[in-house]
Amino acid sequence: MQLKKLLPLGVAAATMLPMVAFGQDEGPVAGTDAASDSIFIFNSLLFLIGGFLVMWMAAGFSMLEAGLVRSKNVTMQLTKNIALFSIAAIMYYLIGYNLMYPLGSWSIGTDETGGYLGAFGVAVLEAVGVGRDAADDYGYASTGSDFFFQLMFCATTASIVSGTLAERIKLWPFLIFTVILTGFIYPIQASWKWGGGFLDSQFGFLDFAGSTVVHSVGGWAALAGALILGPRLGKYVDGKVTAFPGSNLTLATLGTFILWLGWFGFNGGSQLAMGTVGDVADVSRIFSNTNTAAAGGAIAALILTQIVYKKVDLTMVLNGALAGLVSITAEPLTPSLGAATIIGAVGGVIVVFAVPMLDKMKIDDVVGAIPVHLLAGIWGTIAVVFTNSDATFGGQIISIIIVGIFVFVVSAIIWFILKAVMGLRVSEEDEMMGLDKAELGMEAYPEFVS
Amino acid sequence: MQLKKLLPLGVAAATMLPMVAFGQDEGPVAGTDAASDSIFIFNSLLFLIGGFLVMWMAAGFSMLEAGLVRSKNVTMQLTKNIALFSIAAIMYYLIGYNLMYPLGSWSIGTDETGGYLGAFGVAVLEAVGVGRDAADDYGYASTGSDFFFQLMFCATTASIVSGTLAERIKLWPFLIFTVILTGFIYPIQASWKWGGGFLDSQFGFLDFAGSTVVHSVGGWAALAGALILGPRLGKYVDGKVTAFPGSNLTLATLGTFILWLGWFGFNGGSQLAMGTVGDVADVSRIFSNTNTAAAGGAIAALILTQIVYKKVDLTMVLNGALAGLVSITAEPLTPSLGAATIIGAVGGVIVVFAVPMLDKMKIDDVVGAIPVHLLAGIWGTIAVVFTNSDATFGGQIISIIIVGIFVFVVSAIIWFILKAVMGLRVSEEDEMMGLDKAELGMEAYPEFVS
Amino acid sequence: MQLKKLLPLGVAAATMLPMVAFGQDEGPVAGTDAASDSIFIFNSLLFLIGGFLVMWMAAGFSMLEAGLVRSKNVTMQLTKNIALFSIAAIMYYLIGYNLMYPLGSWSIGTDETGGYLGAFGVAVLEAVGVGRDAADDYGYASTGSDFFFQLMFCATTASIVSGTLAERIKLWPFLIFTVILTGFIYPIQASWKWGGGFLDSQFGFLDFAGSTVVHSVGGWAALAGALILGPRLGKYVDGKVTAFPGSNLTLATLGTFILWLGWFGFNGGSQLAMGTVGDVADVSRIFSNTNTAAAGGAIAALILTQIVYKKVDLTMVLNGALAGLVSITAEPLTPSLGAATIIGAVGGVIVVFAVPMLDKMKIDDVVGAIPVHLLAGIWGTIAVVFTNSDATFGGQIISIIIVGIFVFVVSAIIWFILKAVMGLRVSEEDEMMGLDKAELGMEAYPEFVS
Repeated sequence: MQLKKLLPLGVAAATMLPMVAFGQDEGPVAGTDAASDSIFIFNSLLFLIGGFLVMWMAAGFSMLEAGLVRSKNVTMQLTKNIALFSIAAIMYYLIGYNLMYPLGSWSIGTDETGGYLGAFGVAVLEAVGVGRDAADDYGYASTGSDFFFQLMFCATTASIVSGTLAERIKLWPFLIFTVILTGFIYPIQASWKWGGGFLDSQFGFLDFAGSTVVHSVGGWAALAGALILGPRLGKYVDGKVTAFPGSNLTLATLGTFILWLGWFGFNGGSQLAMGTVGDVADVSRIFSNTNTAAAGGAIAALILTQIVYKKVDLTMVLNGALAGLVSITAEPLTPSLGAATIIGAVGGVIVVFAVPMLDKMKIDDVVGAIPVHLLAGIWGTIAVVFTNSDATFGGQIISIIIVGIFVFVVSAIIWFILKAVMGLRVSEEDEMMGLDKAELGMEAYPEFVS
Repeated sequence: MQLKKLLPLGVAAATMLPMVAFGQDEGPVAGTDAASDSIFIFNSLLFLIGGFLVMWMAAGFSMLEAGLVRSKNVTMQLTKNIALFSIAAIMYYLIGYNLMYPLGSWSIGTDETGGYLGAFGVAVLEAVGVGRDAADDYGYASTGSDFFFQLMFCATTASIVSGTLAERIKLWPFLIFTVILTGFIYPIQASWKWGGGFLDSQFGFLDFAGSTVVHSVGGWAALAGALILGPRLGKYVDGKVTAFPGSNLTLATLGTFILWLGWFGFNGGSQLAMGTVGDVADVSRIFSNTNTAAAGGAIAALILTQIVYKKVDLTMVLNGALAGLVSITAEPLTPSLGAATIIGAVGGVIVVFAVPMLDKMKIDDVVGAIPVHLLAGIWGTIAVVFTNSDATFGGQIISIIIVGIFVFVVSAIIWFILKAVMGLRVSEEDEMMGLDKAELGMEAYPEFVS
Repeated sequence: MQLKKLLPLGVAAATMLPMVAFGQDEGPVAGTDAASDSIFIFNSLLFLIGGFLVMWMAAGFSMLEAGLVRSKNVTMQLTKNIALFSIAAIMYYLIGYNLMYPLGSWSIGTDETGGYLGAFGVAVLEAVGVGRDAADDYGYASTGSDFFFQLMFCATTASIVSGTLAERIKLWPFLIFTVILTGFIYPIQASWKWGGGFLDSQFGFLDFAGSTVVHSVGGWAALAGALILGPRLGKYVDGKVTAFPGSNLTLATLGTFILWLGWFGFNGGSQLAMGTVGDVADVSRIFSNTNTAAAGGAIAALILTQIVYKKVDLTMVLNGALAGLVSITAEPLTPSLGAATIIGAVGGVIVVFAVPMLDKMKIDDVVGAIPVHLLAGIWGTIAVVFTNSDATFGGQIISIIIVGIFVFVVSAIIWFILKAVMGLRVSEEDEMMGLDKAELGMEAYPEFVS
C-alpha cells in the first residue's frame, strides 16, 4: 500500500518519498537510464489506463441512476451526472489537486506532524516534451497522468451523492454542492491520508483505493443531504413503505457492469506503479481480487434474497456486486482470492439488510448508495486489519470517525445554507409531475410513457 | 500460436515450456535483468488489458440478450447474466483454474501422452510484491494476470448458453448448470488443448483463442439444453414459425459493439505475450484481423439479407458481425487482412442460412447463439488449415468432434438430471406471463409496457 | 505534433522521417537493442489502446444517434452505424490506407512539393513474428497497430455523417456514399496533412488529431447531404420550427460518455509514440487537456442554456461536451489546462448558438453534427495558433478552406449522382411511417410505442 502523491508546485517529491513508486520489492534495475525511463513510462501508462477506466465509471453511475429512478426524472438524473463530472474536472483543476497534494506546502500543519489543510493554487502540468531531467518527478510518473487519474477519484465521490438525492432535489443547489464537494470537502479529507496528512502520519490509517476516502465520503455527503431533504412524496405514508420501481433495469445492469469494469482501474491504478516485477504482479493480484469480491457480493445478495424474500431481487444483486467492490477497495492487494471473495460477500449481505433498515428509518436513498458506498465502505475499511498486519483496528476506526464527522458536518452545513438561500427541493406539484418536465422541460422517453 | 499455460501449483512451468512466452522470433534481449523484467511486465499488462476487455463482454452478452428477448423476460435475462459471470469467477477460482492448467500434475494422463483430467485445488496467486526470483513464472507473466485473463474465457463460455435458453428456463437450474459448466466442463476440455492435454499433444489441434474451446463449447451446451427444454410456447404451431421480435434493438446493437470491442482482448490477449518486437507485431496483426473479420461478417449478412429477403435485417447484421468474430478466433494471426475478411464473411453467411434452418428443425435458439457460436465456431476451427500450415484438416475435425461429443453428452446428462430433480421449465402460465413477473416479481420496464 | 505515417509498400519509412517516432526530447537511450525494442513496443501498444478506444466511439455515435432520433427510425440508424463502420474497415483496407500514406509513392505530387494523390493498393501487414530487423518500421511501431489505429479515424469520419441525415435518407445511397467517403474522400484529404502532402509541406498546416482532417470533413459531407436531401417533413412549416424530441435521452447520454472516453484514444494516440519520457508525458498532457475541454464545453452549454432559455437543455449539454472535444482535437498538447478548458468552452458556446441558427437557415441536422463537428472543428483548428507558435493563422485558414471546398464539392457531386441514379430520399408515406417499418420491416421497440 502506498501514498498517493505528486508534485504540482515544482517541489521535487522524489526527494521526499523516494521509495514510493518502486513497490516494496526492488528499485529500478541496474541503474541504467533506459530502465528508469521504462519505470516512468509504465507508471504513467498505468495512470492513463486506470484513469480512463475510472472516467468510464461516470457513465456507469449515470446509467445505474437513470435506470433506478422513475422515467419522469431520468433527464434530470442524466443532466446532474454529466454536469457533476464536468464540475469535478474543473474544480479539481482550479483548487482540489493542490489542496489534496500540497507536497510540503501545507496551509495548516506540516509534513512532520501531518497536515490538515493543503495548498491553494491551480494545477500545472509538466512542460511539453520534457526529458528525464526536466520531469517533475522522474522516479514516479508524469504529472499529467497523475492529475488525470486523481481527478477521476474526485469525480467518483460526487457521482455517489446524486443517486441518493434523486427525484426531488433541484438542479442548481445540487450543482453548487458539487462545486464545494469536489473543490474542498473531498480534497481536504483526501489530503489527510493520500497527501500525507495527519491520518496517514499520526494514525497509520490504511485505505488503499478509497473505501473511506472516496466511497464513504460520498455516502456521508449523501446521508446529510437525504436527512435534510426528506423522503420523496408518498414514499413513507401511514407507516408503510411504497416501492418506486426503477424505470429501466437493463440500463441499471449496464451501469453496474460499467462500474465493475471501471473498478479495475480504480483499485489497480491505486498501486501507483507497474514498472517492476513486484508492482505489476501486485496490480494483477488487485485485478483478480477486485473481480472476485464483486462476484462474492453479487452471489451473496442472490442467495440471500432468495432465502429472505423467496425471490431473487436483481437490484439487490446489482447493489451486492457494487458493495463487494466497495468493500475490497480499502485493501485489494493483501487478501487471498478466498478472503477477497468473503470480504465482498459480506458487503453484499450488508446491502440486503441495510436497504430495508434505511426505509424503516425513513431515510429515502433512491438508488441504495448509502448501503453500498457508506456502509460497505466502513466494512471494507475495517476489514483491512484481517489481511494487512500494518493496519490497526484503532487507527482504522478513528479515521473512519474523523472523516465521517468532517464530511457529514460540513455537508450538512452546506445543505442547510443552500436550503435557506435558494431552497433544496422542488415544489410538490413539480415533484409529482416529475423533474424532467417541471425543471427541464424535456422528457427522456417522450414517445413511450403514457 | 501458443499454449496457454500457468503455474498455479508452484511448479516451475518455465522449465517445462521455456519458449512459450517469447514468441517465435527472439528471446529476451541481451540477457539483462531490465530486459527480462520488461518482457514480464509487458506480458502481464497484455493479460490485464485483455482481461478487462473480455470481462466487458459479459456486459455485451447481457445487453444483446436483454435486447433480443421480449420485455417480459428482460429482468430474468439480466439476472442470469450477472449471476453466471459471478458464478464463473468463483468456480474458476475454486476448481477450474487448476483443472485447466495442471502443469504436469494430471489426475488422469501425463504430459508425455497428453492429459485427460487436470489437477484439483483452489487457485493461489503469487505473494505480494514478488521479486524476479520469487515470481511463479518469471519467463511468462504474473500469476494474477494470467488467472484474471483465463477466468474471463470461462465466463464467456457460460454467457453463450444463457441466450439460447431464454424466456422459458427457470433461474436456479440454469445457475446450477452454470456451476458445472464453469467448474468442470469448460476447464476439463480446455485442458485438452490449452493445458497441454491430449488434443494438443496427440492431435496437433490448433485453436488460437477458442473458436472451439470457448465458442463451440458454449454452443454445444446450449444446443443440448434447447433440445431438452423444447421451444417457447407458440413458437412453432401448425408448421408455422412465429417471430418473437426482440424488445430493444438499440441495446442489442450496443451489446454487439461491446462484444466487438471485447474481442480485441479475447484474440489479442491470446498471443500471451507482447514483450518482444515479434509478439507486439503479432498482437497488432490480430487486432486488425479480428476487426476486419467482424466487418466481413456484418457486410456479408447485410448484403445477403437484402438479396434473400429484399430487406436488410439488423439482427442478422449484428449476428453476422459476431459470427465473423467467432470465425476468426481459431486463427486470428496467420491470415492476411483479405483472408480474415473472407473468413469472417463466411461466418456471416452461415448465420443468415442457419437461423431459419434451426427454426425448420424446431430448435428454438432465442438469440441465435447456436449459429453464431457453434456453427461459425466449427467453421473457424476448420478454416485454420487455410492459413496455418501447422494445422491439419484431420486434427481439427477430430478435435471438434471429440470436444463436441464430450460437451454435448455431459451437458445433456446434467440437463436431464436437473429436469428430473427440480424441473427445467417454468409453467405455461408463468411463461405466458413472463419470467420477470412470475419468477422474480420485478419488471424491467414497469412504466412502459401496457 | 507529428506526422502520421506508415510504410505499407515496403519502403523503409524510418529512413525518410527518422525522428518522427521519438518525440521532440530524446531518442532511444544508450542505443541498446532492448531500449529500442521497448520504444517499438510502447508505441505499438499506444496504437492498440488508442485504436480500441476510438473503435468504441462507433458505439458512441450509434447510441447518440439512436437516442436523438424518433423511435420509428431507430433500427435504421443502428443499421447505418454498424454498416458504415464495417464498410470503413474494408474500404480503408482495400484503398484508403495507401491512398493516405503513400510514403513517397504519390500518384500525383512528390514528397518535396507535397503530394496531392496517394498510392493505390491494398494494405499489407508485416509478416508473422517479425524480428527487429524485419519490422517494416522498427523506429516507429508495428504496421498492424498503425493500420488499426488509422482505420478508426476513417470510420469516425463516416459516423459523423449519419446523424445529420437521419430519418429521411434511404439506406443504400447512404452506404454507397460511405464507400466513397471512406475509400477516397477521407484518405485523399488526410494524405494532404498526415501523409505528408501539400497542406503539410506547403502551408505548414497543423491539425494534431483531426479537428479539420476528421471532424470538419464529416461535417462538410453531412452539410452537403443535408442541403441536397432537404429537411424532414414537418420540420419547417409556415416559418415555424417544430422540435422532434429524441426518443431516448439515456442512450444519447450514454453515447456522449462513450465518445468522451474514446476521445482519449483519439487525441492521446495521435501523439504516435509513448516510448520515451517526453512522449508519455505528452500523452498524459493530452489526456488531461482532452478531458477538461469536454468539461468546459459541457459547463458552457449548461450555464448558457440556463441563461438564454431559463432551463438547462440536456441535449445542448451533451453536444457542448462533444463540441469541447472537437475543439481541442486540433491541438490537445500545447494548451495549459486553463487554455484547454476555455477552448472547449468556446466550442460549447458555438453549439448553443449554432443549433438554432441552422434551423433558421432550414438546414435540418437531426443530431447537431454540423455545429459539433464542422463549426467547432473550424474553431479548434483556428485556436491552434493561440497555444502553438508553429501554427500560422493563414496556414490554418487556407487549409480549412481547401479541405472544406474539396470535401463539400466532391460530396455534393456524389450526393447529386446518387439522387439522380437511385434517389436519396424515402417517399413521404415511408417517412411518416418511419424508416424502420418502411425500409427494414423491423421496429426497434416493438412492444413499447403505441
